Amino acid sequence: MEWCLKILGSSSALPTDTRMLSSQLLTTHSHHFLFDCGEGTQFQLRRFGASIFKIDTIFISHLHGDHLFGLFGLLSSLHMYNRIKPLRIFGQKGIQAVVDMVLQTVNTKLDFSVEIIELQPSEFDVVFEDEELKVYTVPLRHSVVSSGFYVVQKPGKRNIRKEFVESHHIDFSWFPRIQNGEDYLNEEGQLFKNKDITKPPANPKTYAYISDTAYLPEIAKYLKGVDLLYHEATFAEEHQADARAKLHSTAKEAARIALSAQAKKLLIGHFSTRYSQVDKLVQEAKDIFQNTEAVFDGMDIKF
Amino acid sequence: MEWCLKILGSSSALPTDTRMLSSQLLTTHSHHFLFDCGEGTQFQLRRFGASIFKIDTIFISHLHGDHLFGLFGLLSSLHMYNRIKPLRIFGQKGIQAVVDMVLQTVNTKLDFSVEIIELQPSEFDVVFEDEELKVYTVPLRHSVVSSGFYVVQKPGKRNIRKEFVESHHIDFSWFPRIQNGEDYLNEEGQLFKNKDITKPPANPKTYAYISDTAYLPEIAKYLKGVDLLYHEATFAEEHQADARAKLHSTAKEAARIALSAQAKKLLIGHFSTRYSQVDKLVQEAKDIFQNTEAVFDGMDIKF
Repeated sequence: MEWCLKILGSSSALPTDTRMLSSQLLTTHSHHFLFDCGEGTQFQLRRFGASIFKIDTIFISHLHGDHLFGLFGLLSSLHMYNRIKPLRIFGQKGIQAVVDMVLQTVNTKLDFSVEIIELQPSEFDVVFEDEELKVYTVPLRHSVVSSGFYVVQKPGKRNIRKEFVESHHIDFSWFPRIQNGEDYLNEEGQLFKNKDITKPPANPKTYAYISDTAYLPEIAKYLKGVDLLYHEATFAEEHQADARAKLHSTAKEAARIALSAQAKKLLIGHFSTRYSQVDKLVQEAKDIFQNTEAVFDGMDIKF
Repeated sequence: MEWCLKILGSSSALPTDTRMLSSQLLTTHSHHFLFDCGEGTQFQLRRFGASIFKIDTIFISHLHGDHLFGLFGLLSSLHMYNRIKPLRIFGQKGIQAVVDMVLQTVNTKLDFSVEIIELQPSEFDVVFEDEELKVYTVPLRHSVVSSGFYVVQKPGKRNIRKEFVESHHIDFSWFPRIQNGEDYLNEEGQLFKNKDITKPPANPKTYAYISDTAYLPEIAKYLKGVDLLYHEATFAEEHQADARAKLHSTAKEAARIALSAQAKKLLIGHFSTRYSQVDKLVQEAKDIFQNTEAVFDGMDIKF
């Protein structure tokens, strides 16, 4: 099954006429992951035809308003819509206290359970794992503690070749064993090597969400061969000094990470409001890593 | 000079495709007052061509998310736009603590001063006064402490009749004295009664913002002859039981307040999301108070 990344907001710090604040929705086989939740995220979900109810996990990269301030309204709305399903939130230290305090101030006691997990952001570490996938935190460097997230699908099972199934009467109990790599011994005692009767599973999918960070070449090693890499690219090359000062990245630097990680595709976003057009940033990135695209609000990327 | 009320959000509790959360901007001769600040207020200001910079005072009626959650982003954006001008915020007890806590969490120390005044909401009382106007709090009744706001322009000075100015050589120093009601004694010792040579000032303007409240007939006495009365009207008559249970008003009840206060015009809003059309609510109100209009996002009312 394809995964789909939906861009909900792609501006940095301040909203513009065309770009809202940081948020992305990743839909996998069994998850609806929200990455960051700037003010207005609940409106953007509605605007772009995504359900706020399906979200099961929210990952907040760092505690800056443009990545966080939509969370209070989103939780309130879910409460008013009588959500029952539990919700999981990952964020930096302090997120539990601010969510508790704000909800208490507005006298809202949620009817659904929210599990908030505060991150240990200095490590590349698994923070979530289930049958389908793992999510790692990627340590970033910003003016406040910031983490990227790397979603890695687990390898699927081997596919039994259709022609073999059709030409042999395989007992039902054998299917999972063959899918798991076992050789097949039929009732006549004939042995079939697993590799001859199955095809390998599709390559596991990977998605990396690299939010606010200074250029950090060492993260590439964690993301080797990533299918889809989103990397913030707040500034063009001519404003490199601003990128340094504000601990953000340029489009070129995002591209260097993509190149070094041998990513299949790079998405750049979180553009400074000074750029009404971002063609130049895309070109600067493409000069280093050809398969680059700028995100825009409402963009869907299937992979 | 005309005053202008701009409706920024007119839905109750939850946003819809056409209505955002509670917020209104009142522009007077010397003020830009924001009443309530639901999530997305900064986007609505931008969308409807109003400046976020000009706002000098924010009045938050009560601490529910749909009236408050835009405040954090608004303050952050003003900070990022390098605002210097001080800002005043009126709100219920607890607003100072939540603003402080949220800004501290996102590591934002505002470069402009914010004076937060916590209300004593049980009284009808002047909370702001300057040369142009007074603002009173109106005690309301809701599931949390809630206040309306009543803005009363001060009487202007008397206008000296044009024909009198043209036919007499009045010394410049006399103008403010005559405007303030003094009789005029010319150099020949001739006395002109003030009432004969001036016209009274225009009637002072009044605006009442009556946010979330159960039907509270006694507030009408505070609002006698109000020019423009905004009164929440969350429910239609058929859902009166919901209005009771949730301490909101119906459109009819809003109209009863307008009638009893002898308002010149009634605006109703804060509609429950169950109504995709509000014609019925307007009709129910009009049956009692003819000069009623439903607000909509982006509506301008000059008066």
